[in-house]
Amino acid sequence: MQLGMVGLGRMGANIVRRLMRGGHECVVYDVNADSVRQLAGEGAVGAESPEDFVAKLQQPRAVWVMIPAGLTGTIVDQFAALLDEGDIIIDGGNSNYRDDVRRAKKLREQGIHYVDIGTSGGVFGLERGYCLMVGGDDEAVGHIDPVLKTIAPGVGEIERTPGRSGDLAAEEQGYLHCGPSGSGHFVKMVHNGIEYGIMAAFAEGLNILANADAGITQGEHSAEVAPLEEPEYYQFDIDTAKVAELWRRGSVISSWLLDLTAAALQANPTLDGLAGRVSDSGEGRWTVKAAVDIGVPVPVLAASLFERFASRDEDHFANQVLSAMRQQFGGHQELPAGDSLEAGGAKAD
Amino acid sequence: MQLGMVGLGRMGANIVRRLMRGGHECVVYDVNADSVRQLAGEGAVGAESPEDFVAKLQQPRAVWVMIPAGLTGTIVDQFAALLDEGDIIIDGGNSNYRDDVRRAKKLREQGIHYVDIGTSGGVFGLERGYCLMVGGDDEAVGHIDPVLKTIAPGVGEIERTPGRSGDLAAEEQGYLHCGPSGSGHFVKMVHNGIEYGIMAAFAEGLNILANADAGITQGEHSAEVAPLEEPEYYQFDIDTAKVAELWRRGSVISSWLLDLTAAALQANPTLDGLAGRVSDSGEGRWTVKAAVDIGVPVPVLAASLFERFASRDEDHFANQVLSAMRQQFGGHQELPAGDSLEAGGAKAD
Amino acid sequence: MQLGMVGLGRMGANIVRRLMRGGHECVVYDVNADSVRQLAGEGAVGAESPEDFVAKLQQPRAVWVMIPAGLTGTIVDQFAALLDEGDIIIDGGNSNYRDDVRRAKKLREQGIHYVDIGTSGGVFGLERGYCLMVGGDDEAVGHIDPVLKTIAPGVGEIERTPGRSGDLAAEEQGYLHCGPSGSGHFVKMVHNGIEYGIMAAFAEGLNILANADAGITQGEHSAEVAPLEEPEYYQFDIDTAKVAELWRRGSVISSWLLDLTAAALQANPTLDGLAGRVSDSGEGRWTVKAAVDIGVPVPVLAASLFERFASRDEDHFANQVLSAMRQQFGGHQELPAGDSLEAGGAKAD
Amino acid sequence: MQLGMVGLGRMGANIVRRLMRGGHECVVYDVNADSVRQLAGEGAVGAESPEDFVAKLQQPRAVWVMIPAGLTGTIVDQFAALLDEGDIIIDGGNSNYRDDVRRAKKLREQGIHYVDIGTSGGVFGLERGYCLMVGGDDEAVGHIDPVLKTIAPGVGEIERTPGRSGDLAAEEQGYLHCGPSGSGHFVKMVHNGIEYGIMAAFAEGLNILANADAGITQGEHSAEVAPLEEPEYYQFDIDTAKVAELWRRGSVISSWLLDLTAAALQANPTLDGLAGRVSDSGEGRWTVKAAVDIGVPVPVLAASLFERFASRDEDHFANQVLSAMRQQFGGHQELPAGDSLEAGGAKAD
Repeated sequence: MQLGMVGLGRMGANIVRRLMRGGHECVVYDVNADSVRQLAGEGAVGAESPEDFVAKLQQPRAVWVMIPAGLTGTIVDQFAALLDEGDIIIDGGNSNYRDDVRRAKKLREQGIHYVDIGTSGGVFGLERGYCLMVGGDDEAVGHIDPVLKTIAPGVGEIERTPGRSGDLAAEEQGYLHCGPSGSGHFVKMVHNGIEYGIMAAFAEGLNILANADAGITQGEHSAEVAPLEEPEYYQFDIDTAKVAELWRRGSVISSWLLDLTAAALQANPTLDGLAGRVSDSGEGRWTVKAAVDIGVPVPVLAASLFERFASRDEDHFANQVLSAMRQQFGGHQELPAGDSLEAGGAKAD
Repeated sequence: MQLGMVGLGRMGANIVRRLMRGGHECVVYDVNADSVRQLAGEGAVGAESPEDFVAKLQQPRAVWVMIPAGLTGTIVDQFAALLDEGDIIIDGGNSNYRDDVRRAKKLREQGIHYVDIGTSGGVFGLERGYCLMVGGDDEAVGHIDPVLKTIAPGVGEIERTPGRSGDLAAEEQGYLHCGPSGSGHFVKMVHNGIEYGIMAAFAEGLNILANADAGITQGEHSAEVAPLEEPEYYQFDIDTAKVAELWRRGSVISSWLLDLTAAALQANPTLDGLAGRVSDSGEGRWTVKAAVDIGVPVPVLAASLFERFASRDEDHFANQVLSAMRQQFGGHQELPAGDSLEAGGAKAD
Repeated sequence: MQLGMVGLGRMGANIVRRLMRGGHECVVYDVNADSVRQLAGEGAVGAESPEDFVAKLQQPRAVWVMIPAGLTGTIVDQFAALLDEGDIIIDGGNSNYRDDVRRAKKLREQGIHYVDIGTSGGVFGLERGYCLMVGGDDEAVGHIDPVLKTIAPGVGEIERTPGRSGDLAAEEQGYLHCGPSGSGHFVKMVHNGIEYGIMAAFAEGLNILANADAGITQGEHSAEVAPLEEPEYYQFDIDTAKVAELWRRGSVISSWLLDLTAAALQANPTLDGLAGRVSDSGEGRWTVKAAVDIGVPVPVLAASLFERFASRDEDHFANQVLSAMRQQFGGHQELPAGDSLEAGGAKAD
Repeated sequence: MQLGMVGLGRMGANIVRRLMRGGHECVVYDVNADSVRQLAGEGAVGAESPEDFVAKLQQPRAVWVMIPAGLTGTIVDQFAALLDEGDIIIDGGNSNYRDDVRRAKKLREQGIHYVDIGTSGGVFGLERGYCLMVGGDDEAVGHIDPVLKTIAPGVGEIERTPGRSGDLAAEEQGYLHCGPSGSGHFVKMVHNGIEYGIMAAFAEGLNILANADAGITQGEHSAEVAPLEEPEYYQFDIDTAKVAELWRRGSVISSWLLDLTAAALQANPTLDGLAGRVSDSGEGRWTVKAAVDIGVPVPVLAASLFERFASRDEDHFANQVLSAMRQQFGGHQELPAGDSLEAGGAKAD
């Protein structure tokens, strides 16, 4: 079928490429004419302007918008003004599902369908395919089914889940109509929330392994700091890169994120050069806020988010307050870097 | 090569089977004579007593003990008394690595080698192979290398990590000599700590999805309880079984634990019949205690452990204290089951 | 000065009483005529209707609205329609500060001042006074200063903070103009967030004490469950009521919440009859959401909120998922109530 | 009565002073002869050697050891060798309660009583008195009751807990016999665990207040970083020193730790000069480990401990792992300091 793509960044361009390989026709537009030219050279139909783009699409038009979340609202409005009743706008970016709920309602009044799609797959999506979480009305989602099937990874070599039989369900091919507008990005949001938790679990565990030699290195601590209580149990010099590789085979925690971790540690075993300032995109935050709204406890997901905040020193004032309190009640002075456990004993509290 | 196996429970028996398939000779012993007879029928050399078992092994003997952690110490002592200098005792169970450190030291005085092996793979190990984390001295670990290679999953169909080349390293075949005595179970311990964190991330995320319809169901709440603030954003009736299946393909969080989750939800989409009282074995606890010892922050791993405690109502008295405090300062009464968010407004604090 | 009070529930009525004791004139209104009559009998000027209420107030009128948060918006609108330019509406309830920001903006267009006040003090406020956190423009907050000073606790017998000298600042008397509209409820929101954290710290700590006899009671566990590792260290039968009382004197954690805890445990040492289902009002939730918005890590505040959710079984599906996963990979069955730590040893993972 | 004090650091010396003010006779010893001379000048009986010290005490001797936890074992052994059956050794330092259990058992074989006392009160104890948590056998604890009563704060001006009547219980005077050997330090340990939680609650809450102006300051962020979603709600420039002072009067969270926080912020409102590297003594760690041992969930106490670890960059490798993972799956580069929320939109995951 025919699909129009607005926004030809890495994600948008790769989706277009995957669609063209699958035999679909793509009309493409981007404010950057070079990007349009590039894809036109690969077989897409390039458009010179939003008007030209809309004119080149057959009705009912399917317009996939793939741009940074902050701009999506503006672009959706811009194109909606050019579309006709029955046309479909698809937001494949990382929008907040709340925006979807509002946009869908507004566009519905114009007779335009709105479909929100959360996509996962990272930079590997062009080859692996993208896992697609789709929200919207049945008619629109049904109309773009051929496109979704092509973008998705398909069944691949992954073993079928026991108990499933007969024709492959959409979810077995890597895409799913999750529910009404917003549900696609909602499920993607939770996906990313889980991703943060899994990443943190690996990071914390590997940090323990990296410090399993604390009983050897503790001699460096000053005499004013209490020694590690049982140094004989922390004498291990573990090779985290080898362990990550090991766990890829046969262990309960084998996973794609572990594959990536093994690759990262293989390339740079000490992770030199990384400052450890971890960014977060909106989804992790929205996940925690949604859980709070509906009263679902998410201690792990929240902790993983807060670790990222703290990695960027957003805990600085809190830590200063703690140090200040300790000075007040115990006359404790801050220790210099490198020391950590203060001398025990007859100190005040 | 020849290996002796003490303990023919599910794990021990399956390891023996996997070894025999790989061409190794196994001498087997268990207090339960039926278990011995069963494996003898499958080709193993059965032993009638510890003495018989030891007599049937060639020196240097390799004795793999595969029994519940609580009994390992006693059994190791019992067999060590029958062994000769240069023999090897292998603990393949879920021992605390601290016991390994102590046992290895004691056995070293007798000239007996001690090897601790953490094994992961669950009930699928017979077919998939077991991921092996090995601690001990070079000589002993080197001696049993052929056995380890057979028990491990091997390279399988898993893609090689970018940057690796040449001969396959042991870790690429699913086993690794991690370091001196204790390091095998230490790495396995951390593995399980990570496992808890990953499991919790999935469980919490799926719980959000399962409650994404809070805006629809809120009508059931009593008039005395403040309504959900923005019910329009929680109108989703998500099929968690389909979502789990979906994420298996192409998503960032694809993993073996997700495969299992999809299977569980496929078999029982509402998880009826499960009380949600989640057990924990020692490793999750030891992981947190080790992290505390060496000053490594593990908020996610600890939170996942505490969630399991709380699932078994170990938080009961704490919650009663909270209710009691609230009654004291605000005259708040506990709400009946089903209500949650108390009426806002001009209540005291 | 003269103040009008709308809403004569416990909080509103007690504030009126405290004001009258302080020599202020109070005009009072409530939909419940009995409440009006009651306070009129104590010296207040009763009003029969909103119109009557407004007519009895001198300009610029100061109207304190003290009703459940869910109704505040409606009531504010209702009374705003009756007021004149320069009049002041005060929301003393537990509103979300975001509502304040919006309401203040809207009322400003009508020339009406809006003041938001977070009040803390619980049921003890009539005698102790209420701690007041005030947001609004300088003119309006300055105008009601005499009222605030009377409602607040005053300096009391609390020792002056070292470094402070000269005239008593407002905050030393228990009230503070925190900033523009919304800042009063914002500070109150964070106050409650902190309150949750402190309460949880006490509750968790007391729960440890209550279980310090685990080494004595462990015999009750079944043979299939691994015993407590070092029962000799958990042989304490601690009287938590006595400990709470003890800590009130001279300890670092002495606090009003501890006073209340001691009172609760004195009255009911085993807290029999409390189900431990802990409610939460909006402030704890808003605190976490605000922290997430601005990227401030709040692991303790969030954990204390999630404990409350879990106390009401909002973690049920998550726990079922965990049990289901464990069945999948290890063939683990759920243990019956009372058992917790599964037998270690040669179990799969 | 007569008490011997070994160790004349700040805590030991102040306890001696408080005892002498209360009319008790104190025999004092320290390896530092100057410390002995100083207290002898204030009225104590100075001893020149352990032997001299023991000789100057009447039987049954009561020997209070007040030295750093790391040395207590050695000193207790040294003095125990000089004591007679029926004498009492008191450890008033910050020992691990497990050491008490072991020491008491060993000394019991010699007929010597061992009493462990956890003391709280910080640098203010000389004037305020020390809150005493006492473990040991009835005979020994009964014998030193007069001393405990003097060191403790006494009933002070603190209101009696409702429901209590008749003679003042020991706990109402600030000391308590908690149970057998170890229970004193166990209760003190949990006290400190709670202290960490309360401190963290204040620190996190004040950090939110300190960042409530995020909507004003966000302009500083680069164009590549997604802006704060609703800046209009984060326009508050809160004076945290004033708020801390305010909460001291009438609020639910009034507490001694808040008094100290107010004093610290009054002295240094921006906490300039504090690096925010927060130490931790053993008790916070032991609390979490004990909770893990007995299966009590302590998410808040653990989170407060882990925040301290992270404040000292003990999370560094974990954060590097997270950054490395993100580079792998999304090609994300670390952002420079100052930027935090990455541009949303059509980025991979």
